Amino acid sequence: MIVDGSLCADFGRLNTTMKQAVQLLGISNAIVDVLAHIDDDFLKKIDAVPGSMTLIDQQRAHQIYSMMGPATEMSGGSVANTVAGFANLGGSAAYIGRVKKDQLGSIFNHDMRSLGIDIRLEPGTDGAPTARSHILISADGQRTMQTYLGACMELAVSDITPETFGAPKAVLLEGYVWDLPEGPALARRAIDIAASNGTTVVLSLSDSFCVERHRESFDEAARNGVDIIVADDEELNALMQTSEFDDTLEAIRNYDNLFVITRSELGSVIVRGDEKIEQAASRVDAVVDTTGAGDAYCAGFLFGWVNGHPLAECAKIGTFCGTTVIQQVGARIEPGLLDDYD
Amino acid sequence: MIVDGSLCADFGRLNTTMKQAVQLLGISNAIVDVLAHIDDDFLKKIDAVPGSMTLIDQQRAHQIYSMMGPATEMSGGSVANTVAGFANLGGSAAYIGRVKKDQLGSIFNHDMRSLGIDIRLEPGTDGAPTARSHILISADGQRTMQTYLGACMELAVSDITPETFGAPKAVLLEGYVWDLPEGPALARRAIDIAASNGTTVVLSLSDSFCVERHRESFDEAARNGVDIIVADDEELNALMQTSEFDDTLEAIRNYDNLFVITRSELGSVIVRGDEKIEQAASRVDAVVDTTGAGDAYCAGFLFGWVNGHPLAECAKIGTFCGTTVIQQVGARIEPGLLDDYD
Repeated sequence: MIVDGSLCADFGRLNTTMKQAVQLLGISNAIVDVLAHIDDDFLKKIDAVPGSMTLIDQQRAHQIYSMMGPATEMSGGSVANTVAGFANLGGSAAYIGRVKKDQLGSIFNHDMRSLGIDIRLEPGTDGAPTARSHILISADGQRTMQTYLGACMELAVSDITPETFGAPKAVLLEGYVWDLPEGPALARRAIDIAASNGTTVVLSLSDSFCVERHRESFDEAARNGVDIIVADDEELNALMQTSEFDDTLEAIRNYDNLFVITRSELGSVIVRGDEKIEQAASRVDAVVDTTGAGDAYCAGFLFGWVNGHPLAECAKIGTFCGTTVIQQVGARIEPGLLDDYD
Repeated sequence: MIVDGSLCADFGRLNTTMKQAVQLLGISNAIVDVLAHIDDDFLKKIDAVPGSMTLIDQQRAHQIYSMMGPATEMSGGSVANTVAGFANLGGSAAYIGRVKKDQLGSIFNHDMRSLGIDIRLEPGTDGAPTARSHILISADGQRTMQTYLGACMELAVSDITPETFGAPKAVLLEGYVWDLPEGPALARRAIDIAASNGTTVVLSLSDSFCVERHRESFDEAARNGVDIIVADDEELNALMQTSEFDDTLEAIRNYDNLFVITRSELGSVIVRGDEKIEQAASRVDAVVDTTGAGDAYCAGFLFGWVNGHPLAECAKIGTFCGTTVIQQVGARIEPGLLDDYD
């Protein structure tokens, strides 16, 4: 056995090759969730809209955290949840997001790496701390998010290179990326690299307020490079500027994209041009926590998709994953989930 | 209204007075728990005894963490759990423990302060990072702990002063404090200050291995300054060097202490000299998580005790708290628990 420089070099090349072999690459905001239960009057005190996601600065983050009760910390972020779920289903995945080299950043990267996910960016050594989302859970289970983007804001166009991107089968972007200073430009860079190596581009629309903030840019992306759009009714209504779902379905016929639409208890609808597949929701005895249902559906759908299953089967796997997640505490899919899938 | 230096000085004195007014002061290892589910073979891989608590160094902590799956972080530590529970029951409390000025230290202090607990030490600015306990949860719910004490190791005799100690009605120490380099000395210092101002000294024995490590020192403390000893059967057997509980009960008649003995499904026993009070366990339909049952019992018992309730009533409140905690996920008592107590 020869242990020398040439072997190391070969091993380096092997690593590069392995990097490019993943099925799914996520590009998104790397966030640690800080979850706490709140009293009924807490949201009034901080002047937050129940159920909303609001971006806050560091000062406001300190203020809200100091008002919150004891919290639990766990890795979060919509696309990161999907990528983690995808990996737990057995898929190979990689991730591009910006954390700082601090304890929360170590936690985030540890949690992703422990699932075999290839982290493509090293933590930053200076600048803002790792992002955290203060998730305020009211007595009825509703979640209101106050998100401090911190280090995420430093994700740059220069972070998206042929080397960090590799050649995944699909790349998943989230609408929230457009909130970053270089977000629209880095998303465009990702879309361009994807086009050059045949990677399918998936865009998850994040939330309807996010769509309102970036509607024109999302519409442009949908018409130029994005292949699959994952959204719920409200997000898609916002994109299509419609208020009724039937009008939305009519409007998206003008697009070439594949639309994956999650509708909670109404199930999901897959639409591509005149093709339409409806998947009923599963009966659930007790909903424990709806957090991450959409992300888990997306993980299941994409897992089916990259493995070449027909769209109806992808929707079925997505539904199975979403249904499982709402019956547990926590947003992420646990390993071995598909053991129970038939 | 006069806002000047003299008012500030008065306010300073007022603060000092308020500091001394708490009912319970905890002195212990300030630890953030890092919880993750493990496969059956994980404990073999790291050569750990199932259900044990092992102290590990930083290198081993990194090694184990890198092998662990995605984790959840939350403030922990036995006495800290009890103090947090005590505060949530409505008691006034203070805490002495050593964290570093890092993100985990901020999390620990935030969680305590958010319950109104007066944190008596500022975080250290250098030295080892805030402690964390890797809690490995097997499929059957058993928990194995690998604890890196980090900043806790720097808790010093000089941290225990009349000012940081104040004049609480009771001070709660844990056996694990004796594992620190200055632990026995700082515990002695706390016991001496307590004696000088009429504070009741409570010692929770932590675990039977800890008792084995420090048996003579615990015995000396029990005979010189400790008023109340909180323990389970095994810990007390270890202290009395007996193997049968009946022999233990006989042995502790030679001590002047009040013994509070928790026995899981066998309930609890309060013993002082010839006085013996037995409290049955409550019937529980489904045990969700036994973590923190003893700490919660201790919180309830001490809450009754500092409020002048008879011992039988203290045992009843302790049982109620312990029973509640094993029916929830998480070690700490939630606020408003006694709303359901009758």
